[in-house]
Amino acid sequence: MTKRIYVDNAATTKVAPEVVEAMLPYFTENFGNPSSIYAEGREAKKAIERAREQVATAIGADPKEIYFTGSGSEADNWALRSTAKALSSKGNHIITSAVEHHAILHTCQDLEKQGYEVTYLPVDKYGMVSPEDVKAAIKDTTILISIMFANNEIGTIMPIAEIGEIAKNAGIVFHTDAVQAVGNVHIDVNEMNIDMLSLTAHKFHGPKGSGALFVRNGVRLISFITGGAQERMRRAGTENVPGIVGLGKAIELATANIDQKQKKLTALRDAYIKKVLETIPYSHLNGHPTKRLPGNANISFEFIEGEGMLLSLDMKGISASSGSACTSGSLDPSHVLLAIGLKHEEAHGSLRVSFGEDNTMEDVNYIADSLKEIVERLRMMSPLYEEMLKNK
Amino acid sequence: MTKRIYVDNAATTKVAPEVVEAMLPYFTENFGNPSSIYAEGREAKKAIERAREQVATAIGADPKEIYFTGSGSEADNWALRSTAKALSSKGNHIITSAVEHHAILHTCQDLEKQGYEVTYLPVDKYGMVSPEDVKAAIKDTTILISIMFANNEIGTIMPIAEIGEIAKNAGIVFHTDAVQAVGNVHIDVNEMNIDMLSLTAHKFHGPKGSGALFVRNGVRLISFITGGAQERMRRAGTENVPGIVGLGKAIELATANIDQKQKKLTALRDAYIKKVLETIPYSHLNGHPTKRLPGNANISFEFIEGEGMLLSLDMKGISASSGSACTSGSLDPSHVLLAIGLKHEEAHGSLRVSFGEDNTMEDVNYIADSLKEIVERLRMMSPLYEEMLKNK
Repeated sequence: MTKRIYVDNAATTKVAPEVVEAMLPYFTENFGNPSSIYAEGREAKKAIERAREQVATAIGADPKEIYFTGSGSEADNWALRSTAKALSSKGNHIITSAVEHHAILHTCQDLEKQGYEVTYLPVDKYGMVSPEDVKAAIKDTTILISIMFANNEIGTIMPIAEIGEIAKNAGIVFHTDAVQAVGNVHIDVNEMNIDMLSLTAHKFHGPKGSGALFVRNGVRLISFITGGAQERMRRAGTENVPGIVGLGKAIELATANIDQKQKKLTALRDAYIKKVLETIPYSHLNGHPTKRLPGNANISFEFIEGEGMLLSLDMKGISASSGSACTSGSLDPSHVLLAIGLKHEEAHGSLRVSFGEDNTMEDVNYIADSLKEIVERLRMMSPLYEEMLKNK
Repeated sequence: MTKRIYVDNAATTKVAPEVVEAMLPYFTENFGNPSSIYAEGREAKKAIERAREQVATAIGADPKEIYFTGSGSEADNWALRSTAKALSSKGNHIITSAVEHHAILHTCQDLEKQGYEVTYLPVDKYGMVSPEDVKAAIKDTTILISIMFANNEIGTIMPIAEIGEIAKNAGIVFHTDAVQAVGNVHIDVNEMNIDMLSLTAHKFHGPKGSGALFVRNGVRLISFITGGAQERMRRAGTENVPGIVGLGKAIELATANIDQKQKKLTALRDAYIKKVLETIPYSHLNGHPTKRLPGNANISFEFIEGEGMLLSLDMKGISASSGSACTSGSLDPSHVLLAIGLKHEEAHGSLRVSFGEDNTMEDVNYIADSLKEIVERLRMMSPLYEEMLKNK
């Protein structure tokens, strides 16, 4: 078997050994229900509160502002649906962007069916939302602004602090889907005037099935999952104690290492982008050249079908993605790539590589060399490429 | 440190070593995102589909009828909210019982605020819902019947097959919250005409944060968590692969052992009930004497405060519960005990012991002896007890 090179860390990450180790006792030794008042229950409760502090510390929040969820998608649904409901007497207008994750977009579409009005802001060619556009979109009826911290497909980091200031001045709740950003870039909810923030552990070497929603003190939060009195009566369901412990440990590790990680991943990313753009003709970078997630490189190859490229890479032991893992299997081109102005064909021929701390410069070279070979081969089979050469 | 005796298996259970072992590779080796098309993703996908088969087999369903969730509460919310929405053009009436778990009751209350009408059926002194009452409550506008399989506090097993038949004949969707029943009693969704069923892994030695909803083919299911295309486009969010693998393994183990487990737990339960009722005056069993969960014993002690009893038991190394773990910390008496006709004081002085496979007859004797001592001591301090003795 060939050695595998995993460069799809934006889809999910390997759980860190320290995180698994921290989780393990909560499966079999300290397995109590945190709602129980006896010793086993108190141990579990303590572990959850420790994790709540770890999450709060990582984003500059107060532990009381952290609510655990079962995923980033649940956190997104909760933030939007709660705020829409809580503020429905104040207004019905929501501002978001055209390049959000589907957990935001599909939830907004659902809210539209319920009578809410949603503005989907366009982005520039780098996938950037303009703070001026946010400001101009605000109406008397605006109750929520939800703009992602960093884009999951093209890596573009949004001007969150500027948007946060606009929202604050207008007295509007500001939510950010920071699922891709947490553990990769510095976040401070107070500096950035963020009122609600979604995150999920499995994007920074924590376990799947464990997310959190930050909700600023004073922002009203209506339960999304109703039932028992867990999470200060806001989120019913027995707490996923090992998952929460894993989230806490993972976010602590990720934020402690963030400068070193950024430096390493940025070097890999930039070397990869440089080599690919230099050696493969008709290729171009998607997303912002510098204001992008440290590990994210999204490149379009003209005259190529993404699926063939992915399968060929897989056969060479390389795990990469055509964009969002959550929409794999769908034949629709990426809404993000269309929003930054790519044509359908270009959107189909794009490749997202997202580096992690396990990757090396050797990986970069192997991937770039493999890609050159694959792209050449696939283009040889492409009638469009042939035609282009003829007309040249 | 004293040896601990854990008899709160209705609150949560220790994860079985085989289950942890099955989960472990999916944290660090096969950590791929199941939506990804490369090798790591395909491995994760395969693991999920294997677990889906294990869950389906355990309840006599088709794998395509199983949807994974983050908890039993999420499954309950999903079943109720989806069906209410999907069938709103047909009617707005829901039938449930007064003794359901809060994940059902609070969700029904929320639906009432949205304009749905809910009938909360009473129960008899054993906590049993009468099939005749269900039949009599059906109206032209009834769209859903939701009756729990077995009660979480007093263990009473409901006449599910009879209710299923009534629902089927009336053409009404029948949901059952089987969180306490799965892995403890035999369930066949076809024999019993169940259309939707909620379950959660941590009640049968699986991990917390991992549940499932069975939805019969043909019953319409609207997404509760919207976003990505996971779970056949019905439940957004990256799948909790280790949690799902653990659920699959745990349900397989639990159903394989079910006869043996029932026999063992019933013997422990009945010995405990007999000894306690015989040795402690003014104590009486709550729930049905025989139609009850194998491990569940819920006994009321007059002239006693439950909290004092729990803390005293904890000091003797015994972990038991006053009722539902999900409402611990609340000072309200149990809605279940009130529904079966107990007075407030009696409801406050009740103790749920729920045995597991690790318990022994020695545990039974130790708990019963400790209880006798504790109850006597607490009663000595009770003015009500003193008064009763005087008036005797």
